[in-house]
Amino acid sequence: MNTKARKVMIIGAGNVGASAAYALLNQNICEELILVDLNKTRAEAHAQDLSDAAAYMPGMMTITCRDASDCADVDIAVITVSGGALKPGQTRLDELKSTAKIVHSIVPQMMAGGFNGIFLIATNPCDIITWQVWQLSGLPRSQVIGTGVWLDTTRLRRKLAQDLDIGAQSIDAFILGEHGDSQFPVWSHSSVYGSPIEQVYRHRTGRELDRQAMADSVRKLGFEIYAGKGCTEYGIAGTIAEICRNVFTGSHRALAISCILDGEYGVNGVAIGVPAVLAQSGVQQVIELQLEADEQEKFARSVEVIKANIALLP
Amino acid sequence: MNTKARKVMIIGAGNVGASAAYALLNQNICEELILVDLNKTRAEAHAQDLSDAAAYMPGMMTITCRDASDCADVDIAVITVSGGALKPGQTRLDELKSTAKIVHSIVPQMMAGGFNGIFLIATNPCDIITWQVWQLSGLPRSQVIGTGVWLDTTRLRRKLAQDLDIGAQSIDAFILGEHGDSQFPVWSHSSVYGSPIEQVYRHRTGRELDRQAMADSVRKLGFEIYAGKGCTEYGIAGTIAEICRNVFTGSHRALAISCILDGEYGVNGVAIGVPAVLAQSGVQQVIELQLEADEQEKFARSVEVIKANIALLP
Amino acid sequence: MNTKARKVMIIGAGNVGASAAYALLNQNICEELILVDLNKTRAEAHAQDLSDAAAYMPGMMTITCRDASDCADVDIAVITVSGGALKPGQTRLDELKSTAKIVHSIVPQMMAGGFNGIFLIATNPCDIITWQVWQLSGLPRSQVIGTGVWLDTTRLRRKLAQDLDIGAQSIDAFILGEHGDSQFPVWSHSSVYGSPIEQVYRHRTGRELDRQAMADSVRKLGFEIYAGKGCTEYGIAGTIAEICRNVFTGSHRALAISCILDGEYGVNGVAIGVPAVLAQSGVQQVIELQLEADEQEKFARSVEVIKANIALLP
Amino acid sequence: MNTKARKVMIIGAGNVGASAAYALLNQNICEELILVDLNKTRAEAHAQDLSDAAAYMPGMMTITCRDASDCADVDIAVITVSGGALKPGQTRLDELKSTAKIVHSIVPQMMAGGFNGIFLIATNPCDIITWQVWQLSGLPRSQVIGTGVWLDTTRLRRKLAQDLDIGAQSIDAFILGEHGDSQFPVWSHSSVYGSPIEQVYRHRTGRELDRQAMADSVRKLGFEIYAGKGCTEYGIAGTIAEICRNVFTGSHRALAISCILDGEYGVNGVAIGVPAVLAQSGVQQVIELQLEADEQEKFARSVEVIKANIALLP
Repeated sequence: MNTKARKVMIIGAGNVGASAAYALLNQNICEELILVDLNKTRAEAHAQDLSDAAAYMPGMMTITCRDASDCADVDIAVITVSGGALKPGQTRLDELKSTAKIVHSIVPQMMAGGFNGIFLIATNPCDIITWQVWQLSGLPRSQVIGTGVWLDTTRLRRKLAQDLDIGAQSIDAFILGEHGDSQFPVWSHSSVYGSPIEQVYRHRTGRELDRQAMADSVRKLGFEIYAGKGCTEYGIAGTIAEICRNVFTGSHRALAISCILDGEYGVNGVAIGVPAVLAQSGVQQVIELQLEADEQEKFARSVEVIKANIALLP
Repeated sequence: MNTKARKVMIIGAGNVGASAAYALLNQNICEELILVDLNKTRAEAHAQDLSDAAAYMPGMMTITCRDASDCADVDIAVITVSGGALKPGQTRLDELKSTAKIVHSIVPQMMAGGFNGIFLIATNPCDIITWQVWQLSGLPRSQVIGTGVWLDTTRLRRKLAQDLDIGAQSIDAFILGEHGDSQFPVWSHSSVYGSPIEQVYRHRTGRELDRQAMADSVRKLGFEIYAGKGCTEYGIAGTIAEICRNVFTGSHRALAISCILDGEYGVNGVAIGVPAVLAQSGVQQVIELQLEADEQEKFARSVEVIKANIALLP
Repeated sequence: MNTKARKVMIIGAGNVGASAAYALLNQNICEELILVDLNKTRAEAHAQDLSDAAAYMPGMMTITCRDASDCADVDIAVITVSGGALKPGQTRLDELKSTAKIVHSIVPQMMAGGFNGIFLIATNPCDIITWQVWQLSGLPRSQVIGTGVWLDTTRLRRKLAQDLDIGAQSIDAFILGEHGDSQFPVWSHSSVYGSPIEQVYRHRTGRELDRQAMADSVRKLGFEIYAGKGCTEYGIAGTIAEICRNVFTGSHRALAISCILDGEYGVNGVAIGVPAVLAQSGVQQVIELQLEADEQEKFARSVEVIKANIALLP
Repeated sequence: MNTKARKVMIIGAGNVGASAAYALLNQNICEELILVDLNKTRAEAHAQDLSDAAAYMPGMMTITCRDASDCADVDIAVITVSGGALKPGQTRLDELKSTAKIVHSIVPQMMAGGFNGIFLIATNPCDIITWQVWQLSGLPRSQVIGTGVWLDTTRLRRKLAQDLDIGAQSIDAFILGEHGDSQFPVWSHSSVYGSPIEQVYRHRTGRELDRQAMADSVRKLGFEIYAGKGCTEYGIAGTIAEICRNVFTGSHRALAISCILDGEYGVNGVAIGVPAVLAQSGVQQVIELQLEADEQEKFARSVEVIKANIALLP
């Protein structure tokens, strides 16, 4: 028999993990959701609450709780764990170490359990943890993906869409680099219907596009949402669902996600946000762009930031 | 021009309201979501977070914040406001009064603003507030719907589905009455493919169906979820999305929702959970069932409980 | 790696086969469609025409042409071949023999090619050919399904839905037996929300339900459509898509389809339309109903008709 | 009450019209389909066949037959009529005249019937008939759309997608001009992720992109399909469904469709394929591209071809 249920394991059932499960469910992307969390009571409550919603869907979606090691049948494992909110006196470095420690305890368990699917990392700092999971798992780089700058890219597109009054799907703009402060929009490659974005912006709005203000508004959006509600969940959950759907359907679409580079852009063994073609086997190929000089510089700087953080991993 | 965007206003952007928005968005049920909340900062943060997710969807969904009174163009207004968690020393009656007070301030504003769509009430106590909105709005009963026992019905179906290993869609069982302790499954009308549920249960599981235990497990499920995570959101949000979809598509499906009775079941002017056919105009008709004697008694008791609570409204 | 494309092979690329491909594509049910037809020019033209439509879908759907024997990776093989229109002087028996001959040449090729998925037979006489495929393939009966009376059941539901002005999804009525003249609606098990269909009919229409006229109108509908346009394609293609979706999503819904009985209803080794639970493995279980005396008689007669036709197979 | 069923009228229930109805139904794009055809028997048979398929869909879709003049409540009217196959001795001009005659009889009837929705023309020669409908209807140009080169654009994208092994959604290439021989790909604006298509082509395939061969294969694809099966239906029906969905959801996406120009590209009062932003009101704006010299020439030639054909209209 050939047909199998498509299974997504969500490791970390906090706001992001639960919202990702809810998005996957509402979009009918898979048939089984498996929640993993140290707080088993909360995870089980989420599973019950999600199962209520699943009963309205046309397919039959099963939502269960498991240990991370029980993962040999899993297609995609989404990592959304977090080291917890910063306590007074703690630094970003403390946060990185505490998150990395959790990842360090889970991934080897999963590999021992026979995991051979795709890791999708949403935990921040995303590029660093993506690299860590790749190292710990020993899997080929095609099977380790970070959500990276795909959410930032989407924000750029919808901000431009709003100003231009054109659907985000028709805006070909994107962000490269770290899912963090060193990211940057690739203006040289941004367009609407092949027309340079600046030209379209001027034509549709009567104003000049303020590149810096636009890049800043995208980079800061996550913080603004966090400031307003104490978490960000729906956008990142939508990103997770989008990547899972593209993997399951083997769309071969190119998304700007965090991939381990292997010579592309002159870089080796670093995870960073670049356009990559997604297939059922994961990353089928990284797309190399011919960046302009200032963009190359920004990319190099972003690589350095990520490398410096990787060096801090325990 | 005939074509218009379909618009859902969500009044109360807490966990339930935001999750309902997320479900509507992920299921592409409408083109515009409008969030209303006194906490405008949080509502705006939700709108931004939801807009990030919306950018992945094939259509263009707009998510904005407005005042409740700006509602003349709204198709469905979902009420998810809550009077807030009980403080020490407060009773359920205090909670009812505080919730009713909020509803009392909003609905007249909306009617003054020209609202002529469908009210969908998810706020608890659901049947009481549904009645209150009907009274305050002066709208025909077809335009005032409570989520009522549709979530309980779904829970009954999925619990039975789990035991029977049959999809919930093939389980014809349902709950009648109050969305509260006096609700009851209508066992006399429950079946799988027209075969009495007890018979199917015996055949598929080798055990007798324990009616009381099943009814209890359904009634208590909400509390269990609440105990485990401090809120219930996904199931009720799925219920809201399901009802909205049935209205927009004019499905004419019969769902067990809270409707104002007008002689059906020998009752007048009370909102209670009964099967009702949903169309684009709202409730097209209440379906009357020929209940057995003990079910009639339970229904009558449920009506009394609701009436008693209506009498407590300020 | 765990994730695979879901693949449906359609054997016979006439009106029914091509329309089934189009429905599967438009509903995003699988990722690969494989057309098999002796007329390779037409099949390739369909593949190109379908590929144009597929390019609008969010996933990437591949549509190719192959030989039937190239099927080891196929999840579901849909048989829609036909022996061709009757020529003057030919009888239904000639038609059966010519169709059976084609099936006889294809199925062993597929088994030699390593097929281990699910056969879904839409070719008429459906129950006979389902039995033949089961025999020829040597597969467990769970992997051989005929569309059977599921289309007739759908017709019954929508005819009742039209009269009752209630959505077909809320009508629990169905047909049993042969996908042919000896089929019959199981009135004893038909209801809306658990209320006997006659009662609901009277209440909603003010008329008595004319059982015979309703059964006749359902049975004759296919002929009427055929008379009007020279083929029937969309309804049966929708039935094929519906069954494929239920299999892929493992819905565990019960559909009235043609299954090989193995003692159920006191019958052995005959394919006939009965409610069956669909899972990713195919038919998970046949549901036995306690039929009334006259229904038992009709069922027995239908079994005899099918047996008599099986005996005519070359 | 604000909520209404979304209604699409399909004028001409041949292969294209019926397939368009089937695509709209399977994608749940509207709630009511209305078929119009002089051959009422065939149209009614299609309505019955489509209604069978519709009963499997989650919403309630009504499919009926009407006269064209009964259209005041219609959102989108799709014109798929055809003057019939060429008879021996007839020329393309005869075909144009016979088609134009049918359109001439229908559109005024519809305007007299109070039509105020959007005309979507799929009938060939598409740009000519789009112009004719605009003239006959007296509607603003925003409400008259031809499928134009959107199907050709899709073919270009999927042909490139196949060669590049990248999803068609990630290929930003398109066709401008006449839906006919004078159309041309706008290579200067074609890219993948902002990288020139030639560069990506070389990188992914190791070969040079043969522009002429690619353009030819796209332009000839329709003829090849026609040669293989005697009609083209699924691709054009998918195009119709795609445009309807973008209108209903107000996607604001830019599609290359046939629009009446009003000064854009220096042209007035001609219908031709150009990128246009689609909203619920129809064409919200035509996007002007800065074409290269040779592309400007090709565009001018395409305008001349269309003008010459418009001049032939009776």
